[in-house]
Amino acid sequence: MNKADLKSLILQKKSFLCIGLDTDPLKIPQHLLSFDDPVFEFNKQIIDVTHNLAVAYKPNIAFYEGMGHQGWISLEKTIQYLNNFKDTVFTIADAKRGDIGNTSERYAKAFLAKKPDGLGFDAITVAPYMGDDSVKPFLKIKNKWVILLALTSNSGAFDFQTQKLEDGTRLFERVIKTSSIWGTSNNMMYVVGATKAEMIADIRKIIPDHFLLVPGVGSQGGSLEEVCKYGLNQDCGLLVNSSRGIIYASSGTDFAEVAAQKATELQDLMAKELQKAGIN
Amino acid sequence: MNKADLKSLILQKKSFLCIGLDTDPLKIPQHLLSFDDPVFEFNKQIIDVTHNLAVAYKPNIAFYEGMGHQGWISLEKTIQYLNNFKDTVFTIADAKRGDIGNTSERYAKAFLAKKPDGLGFDAITVAPYMGDDSVKPFLKIKNKWVILLALTSNSGAFDFQTQKLEDGTRLFERVIKTSSIWGTSNNMMYVVGATKAEMIADIRKIIPDHFLLVPGVGSQGGSLEEVCKYGLNQDCGLLVNSSRGIIYASSGTDFAEVAAQKATELQDLMAKELQKAGIN
Repeated sequence: MNKADLKSLILQKKSFLCIGLDTDPLKIPQHLLSFDDPVFEFNKQIIDVTHNLAVAYKPNIAFYEGMGHQGWISLEKTIQYLNNFKDTVFTIADAKRGDIGNTSERYAKAFLAKKPDGLGFDAITVAPYMGDDSVKPFLKIKNKWVILLALTSNSGAFDFQTQKLEDGTRLFERVIKTSSIWGTSNNMMYVVGATKAEMIADIRKIIPDHFLLVPGVGSQGGSLEEVCKYGLNQDCGLLVNSSRGIIYASSGTDFAEVAAQKATELQDLMAKELQKAGIN
Repeated sequence: MNKADLKSLILQKKSFLCIGLDTDPLKIPQHLLSFDDPVFEFNKQIIDVTHNLAVAYKPNIAFYEGMGHQGWISLEKTIQYLNNFKDTVFTIADAKRGDIGNTSERYAKAFLAKKPDGLGFDAITVAPYMGDDSVKPFLKIKNKWVILLALTSNSGAFDFQTQKLEDGTRLFERVIKTSSIWGTSNNMMYVVGATKAEMIADIRKIIPDHFLLVPGVGSQGGSLEEVCKYGLNQDCGLLVNSSRGIIYASSGTDFAEVAAQKATELQDLMAKELQKAGIN
């Protein structure tokens, strides 16, 4: 999926919602435990009721690896199910990988290559610390995206990301400046936490045209309005993620219905923001 | 395994060799393809002939994920096999993970917790970009180790890691300084590439007592002598990794025998370095 396709999808659904599938076997409703694969069943039911409200889904790979090879099977089934909604959902492996070239190539293939070579995600989150040869192998796969960590939503972001370099640039700004020439706004996005919305204005000065993946709205306390104020561009340019606030809104048999309500609330707010900004 | 145990192991084997299990189904000898699980069989045979020569093994997780859930099964069997050599080998998941707190907790459990909750590795490599709350969950598991990326062996290390901060400190030095108080030299090590051996002297000024995991000797061009010159401390303080140079030294039916020869050559050099430095 390219940037124009993603924009079309956003305009069509009037939504830039990404739903995080941080699926935890201890948190899913108890009645699902009778299914062969409760984790996949949970994801399937969430996807079924939200795919008209969300433009993107983001399985958080840690949750699947935490279940060993069975978790990997649940992940394989989840991405396969998402890929049935071909061209109508954008899929992100939230993996935060990054290694020397020959190893990043493996991660790129594992997550981005088409079945049976890989899982067939549209995008993967990547950590920048190891520099260009750790990121570029992911950019070699056509029509796929790298979503590079820039300014994350957690408190630890202040340890290194916001440190100033010799020339006064903060590290996250240097990461964005340096890496933005490794790809284009058609195959790179950046992770920017909603909890640091005011810094999005500074980021937009460096990369006016790139999409940003924004976690931290909801449980982590970020504000959708603030994110939109600083982050929207002519293509929308935002994918705003919510995980726990949607998927665990109810732990009863009505979990999917309540998840759809929560997703609708966010989608409504997003539709208003798009209209307010004249993006249509 | 604590630092004293690791030192004993090094003195007993006169070796600080770590063997990287970057096992690629396309590179392993063809005769192994008739086994049910060729990747595990390859690892098993390598381990059988080298476990008296190496103190540590380091499966590179990308290679297993590249094979989907079957790869994860091969990984599970490999760490289970390594754990049969209880207290005589140190095991490292080369995963380079790191995420917000609740997600790092999942990765920590997946790789470090004992079976059946996790894979039961002794240590995991972790990326520092997301700061303290992305690293600390790994340190909460008793008797386990975080090996934090500091100065990596690849060319991309110069993009960000060696950049100078406002006070003249380079980023990798800041990462080491800041993170060294998150744990102790009994539960934290650092990745420092052999290709940048002269910088180990600067690193030793900050952390004289920590172990360093050193990749980049062999295929990537780093020198064992240089690494020892700058890196050895009173406990040895080094784990030097070799992957391709050992495991793919022969692609024939003699692969294990030739791997053992290559490991012996390195172990011999290491024994001499230990003796030269009076570590015994």
